[in-house]
Amino acid sequence: MDLSKLSAQATADDAIIWREGHFYLLDQRVLPDRVDFIELNSASETAQAIHDMVVRGAPAIGITAAYGVVLAGQAAYQSSAQRWQSTIRADLDTLRLSRPTAVNLFWALNRMERLIDGLSATEDPTESLLQEAILIHDEDVRANRKMGELGAALIESNAGVITHCNAGALATGGYGTALGVIRSAHGKGLIREVFADETRPWLQGARLTAWELLQDEIPVTLLADGAAAHRMAQGGVNWVIVGSDRIAANGDVANKIGTYSLAVAAKYHGVKVMVAAPTSTIDMSLASGGEIPIEVRSGDELLFCGGRQIAAQGAGVWNPVFDVTPAELVDAIVTERGVVFSPNKKKMQKLLMD
Amino acid sequence: MDLSKLSAQATADDAIIWREGHFYLLDQRVLPDRVDFIELNSASETAQAIHDMVVRGAPAIGITAAYGVVLAGQAAYQSSAQRWQSTIRADLDTLRLSRPTAVNLFWALNRMERLIDGLSATEDPTESLLQEAILIHDEDVRANRKMGELGAALIESNAGVITHCNAGALATGGYGTALGVIRSAHGKGLIREVFADETRPWLQGARLTAWELLQDEIPVTLLADGAAAHRMAQGGVNWVIVGSDRIAANGDVANKIGTYSLAVAAKYHGVKVMVAAPTSTIDMSLASGGEIPIEVRSGDELLFCGGRQIAAQGAGVWNPVFDVTPAELVDAIVTERGVVFSPNKKKMQKLLMD
Repeated sequence: MDLSKLSAQATADDAIIWREGHFYLLDQRVLPDRVDFIELNSASETAQAIHDMVVRGAPAIGITAAYGVVLAGQAAYQSSAQRWQSTIRADLDTLRLSRPTAVNLFWALNRMERLIDGLSATEDPTESLLQEAILIHDEDVRANRKMGELGAALIESNAGVITHCNAGALATGGYGTALGVIRSAHGKGLIREVFADETRPWLQGARLTAWELLQDEIPVTLLADGAAAHRMAQGGVNWVIVGSDRIAANGDVANKIGTYSLAVAAKYHGVKVMVAAPTSTIDMSLASGGEIPIEVRSGDELLFCGGRQIAAQGAGVWNPVFDVTPAELVDAIVTERGVVFSPNKKKMQKLLMD
Repeated sequence: MDLSKLSAQATADDAIIWREGHFYLLDQRVLPDRVDFIELNSASETAQAIHDMVVRGAPAIGITAAYGVVLAGQAAYQSSAQRWQSTIRADLDTLRLSRPTAVNLFWALNRMERLIDGLSATEDPTESLLQEAILIHDEDVRANRKMGELGAALIESNAGVITHCNAGALATGGYGTALGVIRSAHGKGLIREVFADETRPWLQGARLTAWELLQDEIPVTLLADGAAAHRMAQGGVNWVIVGSDRIAANGDVANKIGTYSLAVAAKYHGVKVMVAAPTSTIDMSLASGGEIPIEVRSGDELLFCGGRQIAAQGAGVWNPVFDVTPAELVDAIVTERGVVFSPNKKKMQKLLMD
């Protein structure tokens, strides 16, 4: 496949592509400067791509890992048709170690592993694994459209919204979680203005959210992360709408660093906070957000910007890339199975049992 | 004067230099990458340098403008010894228009103008103007040392502090306001850890505060602006310490964008907020912070980083570079004339009358 053909047709909805036996990712590290695809040929290349943030966003990581398992199954069966079910495990472990916070990664790998356990020990698993990965991918897009509908129903007309990081098509299988809600609400004519935090250090807001929304002709205004509270103080902001990387049993929400700051400011200003995430993001095994592993990435992400060192040589850095917003600061968690208002453990359990 | 000689000896305390009839500024736009001085030869060059942020920081802008008036006086007298007192006014206006928010600029220009009004209409004013500019400069350094002492007296031992932007020697005549307090407290062994927000969009924290503190061998840990609230949630942060560009009569504080967000987060976490600023920063003519003019700068400051465009083409931008923290979120305003706890109009009046 000629990668430049993929680039020419690229939209945010087609950032994870399996075509004619090959697996491609839109390289989110170089957007919006360049629209480049890379081809991944193995599970370890897939794990590396997740680690290096070629793809990011909790649901997108899960989907990517599922396709990575297809590559793993193919390779394991080719190397030994009799022992593929055991040799594939090392690749599953490699994929599991690619990033720690987004639970969708583990959710997707566990789902693929359950399938593997049920497959024939001696038949080629590739087609079955691929069908499951495509199903995970398709279910995610359907979940996003459903969340878009449920979330938009909460939004009053003439609404001002602030979003953080990128919880759009690029962060998912397509359409987006938080941006899915914004898309749906915009389609209904409810949105007056969308503000996007630039989201240091990785600038997902400035680079990805702005790119996506402009493709959809939804005007967007960028803010320095530190300006969001000041913007709220000007009035006219009704909702903070964000995605999530992991939601604990009590409704505490892990999301991109800065989300917590935004939620604290929202509380102070009476602005409501909506978290849009599929149920695959909910981790009922963790009692509260304090148990969610928070990834700390290289200090270089802060010391550098635009490819150049910007900070003084010798400065220390603390670069946690997620934070936890306690449930008490969240007004609504919107999932494909329904909305949980003022989340707590009982309500989260009820959502998953209904 | 060979500018490279100035560069070789440069410290943050000597960023504004009048030497042998020439006026030099350390170019803060290119720090810490390069330590370059530029020479200013007129009031309009000085105004341009303030506008372009060769020098920034409220007290530093005031001092720079005062030296700019010396250049203006020199030029006015040279062009017409009889009419200098009227021809100098255009240069005062040019300097006044260089930046809108920091009141120290207007304070210093008004002080220079009062001096001008009292000088002989036909004698060369240069030396008198220079003596006044040097006095403003020296008084600022003395005020900073006094604030350092008063502020440090409020800090408990083993303290963790977060600062925002650069309120250091570079932002003043030397020593610094917020960083002066941190320097004094560090000298007394009270400080466990200093965190500096990187401070988008201009990165004063990453570029200037880190550079200054490391010169003084005070270890500093950089944070993304969005990470400060998350850091507070980890515990061990006792104070947010910042400078100010203008303080209204009721104690509302204008400072670098992001300060308000930080103060809201501090309130939520029970972290105290200290504002260190000389009384020249207090503007009793404005009843509250809502009346403070907030400068909005070019969107390019957000669209670009490290000299490269980082944001998606076509994105809108809102780039206010200051915000207002209401007095209710401020625990102490530290000035060279004393400390005002839980500021309000009555206490601010009392401070200035004592």
